[in-house]
Amino acid sequence: MDPVREGQVAIDPWSSKAIKDYRRLMETFGIRRIEEIYPLLEKNGMPKSLHMVRGIVFGQRDLDKVLEAKARGENVAILTGFMPSGRFHFGHKLTVDQLIYFQRNGFKVFVVIADAEAYSVRKIGREEAIRIGIEEYIANMIALGLDPKETTFYFQTNRGTAYYRLIQLFSGKVTMSEMEAIYGEVNPAKVVSALTQAADILHIQLEEYGGYKWVVVPVGIDQDPHIRLSRDLADRLSRDLKLVRPASTYHKLQRGLDGDKMSSSRPDSTIFLTDPPEIARSKLMKALTGGRATAEEQRRLGGVPEECTKFDMDLYHLLTSNEELSRIYNDCRGGKILCGECKLYSWRKLEKFLEEHQKKLEKAKDLAWKIVEAPSF
Amino acid sequence: MDPVREGQVAIDPWSSKAIKDYRRLMETFGIRRIEEIYPLLEKNGMPKSLHMVRGIVFGQRDLDKVLEAKARGENVAILTGFMPSGRFHFGHKLTVDQLIYFQRNGFKVFVVIADAEAYSVRKIGREEAIRIGIEEYIANMIALGLDPKETTFYFQTNRGTAYYRLIQLFSGKVTMSEMEAIYGEVNPAKVVSALTQAADILHIQLEEYGGYKWVVVPVGIDQDPHIRLSRDLADRLSRDLKLVRPASTYHKLQRGLDGDKMSSSRPDSTIFLTDPPEIARSKLMKALTGGRATAEEQRRLGGVPEECTKFDMDLYHLLTSNEELSRIYNDCRGGKILCGECKLYSWRKLEKFLEEHQKKLEKAKDLAWKIVEAPSF
Repeated sequence: MDPVREGQVAIDPWSSKAIKDYRRLMETFGIRRIEEIYPLLEKNGMPKSLHMVRGIVFGQRDLDKVLEAKARGENVAILTGFMPSGRFHFGHKLTVDQLIYFQRNGFKVFVVIADAEAYSVRKIGREEAIRIGIEEYIANMIALGLDPKETTFYFQTNRGTAYYRLIQLFSGKVTMSEMEAIYGEVNPAKVVSALTQAADILHIQLEEYGGYKWVVVPVGIDQDPHIRLSRDLADRLSRDLKLVRPASTYHKLQRGLDGDKMSSSRPDSTIFLTDPPEIARSKLMKALTGGRATAEEQRRLGGVPEECTKFDMDLYHLLTSNEELSRIYNDCRGGKILCGECKLYSWRKLEKFLEEHQKKLEKAKDLAWKIVEAPSF
Repeated sequence: MDPVREGQVAIDPWSSKAIKDYRRLMETFGIRRIEEIYPLLEKNGMPKSLHMVRGIVFGQRDLDKVLEAKARGENVAILTGFMPSGRFHFGHKLTVDQLIYFQRNGFKVFVVIADAEAYSVRKIGREEAIRIGIEEYIANMIALGLDPKETTFYFQTNRGTAYYRLIQLFSGKVTMSEMEAIYGEVNPAKVVSALTQAADILHIQLEEYGGYKWVVVPVGIDQDPHIRLSRDLADRLSRDLKLVRPASTYHKLQRGLDGDKMSSSRPDSTIFLTDPPEIARSKLMKALTGGRATAEEQRRLGGVPEECTKFDMDLYHLLTSNEELSRIYNDCRGGKILCGECKLYSWRKLEKFLEEHQKKLEKAKDLAWKIVEAPSF
């Protein structure tokens, strides 16, 4: 079996239990398969991204409309947000890789640092949120290759009057029951936070923010509520503000190295892009794999790369060559390689990546402070 | 009986049924009698206002603290808001009279035009809200004598970033149950609207808006929920933002000419400051009075000015001389005057007032458009 086949989803995402849930979610919420837009990528002279080919970016909504607009020569944009609440890790990189892919193919990029949300949800103070936003998030994005000249970075609390007006306007366009149907139980902070996220997604359609009517938002499926709320609000303001439903792409969430959700709050199972080499190495070497109980069994039965969080690092980040990835996959499956050796192989890739990235990061930090208008209080 | 006695509340507010409810509300919510601050008015060289003397402004919270700060030479302010949702009537004038009284005694005045709320609560479009805000509300206030040089007029949707930040900040400082305890059932528009009103009340304490720590908000008791929410939020941000609890005064709400609540939405029982004379006259002449069924009875038993909505017009607005007001009151009580004659007497006062006011209004409109920064969309 080959984990990477052009035009097909890799690691057969429709087979595993987790992915059956994805399929159910897709059907429930009307998310379409990413493959459906491949002809339109071609029409626009765009290659498929590595994450599409590998089945990591697996779904979309209305991306066809955005690509058709692009083919007609209209402006297109991609927008995402980060809550400045911890250190920048490889889960964040997954989203930034998508920004870079779309940017290199002619999309304008908008990145919001959700400092308002960081405060209301995580009680992170303003100064800390600003510092983390600039030095962790924006600096790492620039170091990864996002072109700051073609990117608008902004803080939620610094976005200006028309943006805030949208939040107030939206509040009159949705009922509490609708919000609870989308988000579950809500409180004042969640109400304001959800409406703020809808403003983030929709405001760049206003003339004063560039008038980008065709906007893609790359999300994990857990963030789909924000997309649904924004699409409902766009419908309800299609006449008054000429808002258009935002499009979205859906990616699988990379697991942490212990097999659970990757999170800054569990640093032992999350590799940060600023981890010193010895720390990163230690985390990677301890990663939960799909290996067998003994070397003998592993050689006889082969490993299960689908269960291996180290293989996730290869798949999502470290091995950019599909051939190399397939070889590792098959060597594991066939019992030709044991976990320790396999991890060392990936570690060398990671070591090189971190070394080069961290070199770029210092410069990127200086640049980030210069180009981003940080809010004050 | 004399309706106006210095240092006492007029029309014995503690006797009637409605006012018994006021007393209960005052006890429940910890509102103090206005008389308690009279020594502090004297300390500041301030006369009592006509509305205080007549028992219309009957309660306060923490006004003593504001007056003590003023006596120490600190900056003090009075702030109120109007929803631009109809025409400016005598109920609005009651609040503006208080602004003018405090302004003439050294208070800085802030007036917010609640255009965000007009949209989310009443679905009034932006252009209309802006026009009504400027031509109806601000222009009438200036024509009434509010000094625009000592007043900051602003629209909610045009107040800038730090103000909006407060709304987001506040959202994390109050639970849904607390909001429901204060406001009853809430929806997203009400949540945002309540937090916006709290920002209106508290934002002028921030340095960028003047740093006014000592703020009075004159309200009818029905608006007390906003005061209570703002005071709770000020407590919770006393350390982070150095917010101080706002003070408030409480006034009785003038009834409409049919004895029910005065409202723009029932124009027949509400006199607008822009009513043409013949319209205003007709409304006043039809006002519900406390007169008897026949002239004979009226002469024998006397009328009941407390039940007379035309007498309210005298009391709140038309008769600025306490002697004149007492004479009318006693003549009615004593059966010396019949309702038609009494109404004509007040009409002559109203006619003169409207004539002079409407003359000033045209100039005030031009001025209002010039001095107020209207938002765009």
